[in-house]
Amino acid sequence: MDTQIRGDMFIGADAVAGTAGELHAIDPASGQTLDPVYRGATRDQLDRACALADDAFDSYRETAPDVRAAFLEAIADNIMALGDALIERAMAETGLPRPRLEGERGRTCGQLKLFAQVVRDGRHLDVRIDPALPDRQPQPRPDLRLRKIAIGPVAVFGASNFPLAFSVAGGDTASALAAGCPVVAKAHPAHPGTSELVGRAVRDAVAGAGLPEGVFSLVMDTGYEIGGALVTDPRIKAVGFTGSRRGGLALWRMAQDRPEPIPFYGEMSSINPVLLLPEALGARADAIARGFVQSLALGAGQFCTNPGLVLALAGEPLDRFVSTAAEALSALPAATMLTPGIADAYRAGVAAIAKSDAVETVARGQEGHAHSCQAALFVTDAPRFLAEHALQDEIFGAASLVVRCADLHEMRAVIDALEGQLTAAIHMDAGDHDAARTLLPRLERRVGRILVNGFGTGVEVAHAMVHGGPFPATSDPRTTSVGSLAIDRFLRPVAYQDLPDDLLAPALKEANPLGIERLVDGKRG
Amino acid sequence: MDTQIRGDMFIGADAVAGTAGELHAIDPASGQTLDPVYRGATRDQLDRACALADDAFDSYRETAPDVRAAFLEAIADNIMALGDALIERAMAETGLPRPRLEGERGRTCGQLKLFAQVVRDGRHLDVRIDPALPDRQPQPRPDLRLRKIAIGPVAVFGASNFPLAFSVAGGDTASALAAGCPVVAKAHPAHPGTSELVGRAVRDAVAGAGLPEGVFSLVMDTGYEIGGALVTDPRIKAVGFTGSRRGGLALWRMAQDRPEPIPFYGEMSSINPVLLLPEALGARADAIARGFVQSLALGAGQFCTNPGLVLALAGEPLDRFVSTAAEALSALPAATMLTPGIADAYRAGVAAIAKSDAVETVARGQEGHAHSCQAALFVTDAPRFLAEHALQDEIFGAASLVVRCADLHEMRAVIDALEGQLTAAIHMDAGDHDAARTLLPRLERRVGRILVNGFGTGVEVAHAMVHGGPFPATSDPRTTSVGSLAIDRFLRPVAYQDLPDDLLAPALKEANPLGIERLVDGKRG
Repeated sequence: MDTQIRGDMFIGADAVAGTAGELHAIDPASGQTLDPVYRGATRDQLDRACALADDAFDSYRETAPDVRAAFLEAIADNIMALGDALIERAMAETGLPRPRLEGERGRTCGQLKLFAQVVRDGRHLDVRIDPALPDRQPQPRPDLRLRKIAIGPVAVFGASNFPLAFSVAGGDTASALAAGCPVVAKAHPAHPGTSELVGRAVRDAVAGAGLPEGVFSLVMDTGYEIGGALVTDPRIKAVGFTGSRRGGLALWRMAQDRPEPIPFYGEMSSINPVLLLPEALGARADAIARGFVQSLALGAGQFCTNPGLVLALAGEPLDRFVSTAAEALSALPAATMLTPGIADAYRAGVAAIAKSDAVETVARGQEGHAHSCQAALFVTDAPRFLAEHALQDEIFGAASLVVRCADLHEMRAVIDALEGQLTAAIHMDAGDHDAARTLLPRLERRVGRILVNGFGTGVEVAHAMVHGGPFPATSDPRTTSVGSLAIDRFLRPVAYQDLPDDLLAPALKEANPLGIERLVDGKRG
Repeated sequence: MDTQIRGDMFIGADAVAGTAGELHAIDPASGQTLDPVYRGATRDQLDRACALADDAFDSYRETAPDVRAAFLEAIADNIMALGDALIERAMAETGLPRPRLEGERGRTCGQLKLFAQVVRDGRHLDVRIDPALPDRQPQPRPDLRLRKIAIGPVAVFGASNFPLAFSVAGGDTASALAAGCPVVAKAHPAHPGTSELVGRAVRDAVAGAGLPEGVFSLVMDTGYEIGGALVTDPRIKAVGFTGSRRGGLALWRMAQDRPEPIPFYGEMSSINPVLLLPEALGARADAIARGFVQSLALGAGQFCTNPGLVLALAGEPLDRFVSTAAEALSALPAATMLTPGIADAYRAGVAAIAKSDAVETVARGQEGHAHSCQAALFVTDAPRFLAEHALQDEIFGAASLVVRCADLHEMRAVIDALEGQLTAAIHMDAGDHDAARTLLPRLERRVGRILVNGFGTGVEVAHAMVHGGPFPATSDPRTTSVGSLAIDRFLRPVAYQDLPDDLLAPALKEANPLGIERLVDGKRG
């Protein structure tokens, strides 16, 4: 693989530099500017990327499953073949440590391979066949066949906090490509070099598979213009986004205000409540506290599933939890954050909550350099939490708020007052099951994933994963951005009535040449 | 069954009259006002309906499959038990003939029974289990289980043109109830008596099944206030709507502008292109023309899938098609339309297109009374069609426009210029397959159902049906409002990680007590 970093975008097969504005990556550990310079795409370059994607769509969406699956696997192979050049550039651009990025690379490639398997299995096509009933009275039934087809070219916005797994060839791109959608990715400006390397790996996989070049493009943007133009381009039919609530809602609104509104999948913010039920807290306050601080500090707290809120009943066990957590947190070294902007926002968020009369600061981590995260732990009680909605605002980083509840009734009131979340964790022992049973239905309404005796950080890429949740955790509660179900976001159903067999797609032909699972007359056939 | 018509709504179990404004049904055949008077719901009554729905939600969504299925079947039984009282009232309120309404009643009950079977099969729950891998390196995998749960209370807006199948207990209500969502239905003001009768049938089924009363409410509205308040009520989590584009887009916008935007499923307008390919047209121009006029005139053209646009190559066969169609259409008696307002809108639409320099009027049906539909057939050519976007506007009723295309290339250009549609029909013979092959990918982008040698009217309620399509045919191209897949609109996925078996829902328990289809470790188990 070519591991040169040149300042390129990819408009289809063409490696080109933009000309609109300038952009440099910054090493957040040192504050140093990294070469090379990147330049934003022009409107013409974006237009060409969208035109190529549209041209490629009808051909790419009908690629044979083996061809498409091999293409996804080739992307993974090409990413691995970038070797240390990729890891080192990502470290420099994000401040994230090597083991984390190596793990994330494994996750990214595993994700591509999972979707290759999904494509081969063909279950996502949801094929249904209701055979003709020519003798039915009073009217014959026609032959009806349904499959899901790709929705169209997809725009993907790379996230800052997972420069590989939620970026250029991350989950949104992998699931969109698996669905049969060409992708126009917009690189996150915090890691343009990482994006260029991965973008080239995808582009080379497109060429290697003999696919039309428009299957993938990567554009840079030095501001917000190209991102907005991408979302509003009439050839784009869906958007995947992971990032801030403000950015996500702005793009979501643009997607809705188009002459043809399109599905927008934004994963935007979450404080991920952790419930400490009485028996578990009484038995294991110290251990849970240490696990909590470890989860909170992971990656400088820059996880969508970071435990930003703890709910428990007031009393000695909770005091013990708080004091153990405070002790562990106080010892936490400051960790470099992804970008100076994120570090600034974290500081401002912590300062704002610390000033609130509704909370007390019980611990701060070690201080560090200007772009690092000094962990923070705050405590309040349920009435004050319920009275001050701003206490629900996500502080992206290693900050969390403990809410003392008088009883389970009050804990439930806090849950009911929460906005939509990605995850909720419950720490429980056998004696807590009755309490859990009453809280679970309320949690189900609020979150996409409920986990027991653990923390939400660490999102398994699996068939049964949901990384999603009610608004505003995401803009579409019907979906997940992680796991094989993520492919559903980029599909729509089409029915074919009495279409001759030779005109049917392979998935629908009578002989089932793909050998995929189908529902025939309401039964598995 | 109680077949009295009293002017009631149903707020949960309570049969009550509204107090906000007055509403009478009108017999469109005679223009006579029908008793009794209906009054619109107050904001308080609506608030109570939504509160009851929210209260019922957690319990109703966890009902055992057999209980929920039997409830759906009981609704169907109760509707049948209304007997002729229902048919006669629906005839008086809509002007639709008895056989059509009896057929529609059968469809409505069949739909409820289909969803009962869907609930028993449990496939819609999309259960996935990735068992724990405690020894996996470098990290163990937790136990992960996914199911889809009901999205929340659903608002359903009854349509005017199917007083049974797309109204109070129509497809939206049936699929929402099947998903586990309480329903607050808003009656269409054109058929309040029919709505009251069906509403009572549903309410009695709720009581008979021992379900919480909030599972179903029916409200009346004399204007737009209650409909708007229903869509913006924070307890409502999704909306089903079938109606005009103007009404649909207004409600869609309200659903997006809520503090918590919600899924809005609007089925809004479609002109359903019919492609006549050369071989078929040459061989069967007359027969296709007669079938076309029959489909066009069905129910006074008041079908969402009415063939409002015909595309064919200019030439003698098309001339023959037009002249046969003109002859058949000229003989069509005027048919009573659903409401005076719909008849006025039809007249205005026909007058507007007839005045356009871009089209010529080739035939009109027989004239009739003030609220009837006088069929109309217009002809234009592709360049003029492409130049005048308003020619794509749906005229709700038995009006259609033939577009002469110079060649298949021009036909394809017309297809590409179309807005999203519910259906496209292709008339073809063996010699047309190559042409069809080039057009199919373009049609797939534009429509939800493609049918061959038939017309879109007649929408089978089946597993493989799609009654949906790209915007603006519907507000959500990922969905269908007819067929078993319609249930997916009212579900969202939730993942459970390491939740003890006794706290898992039956669908997820290790022993699979429901005996439903599940995906275990990526394989059918």
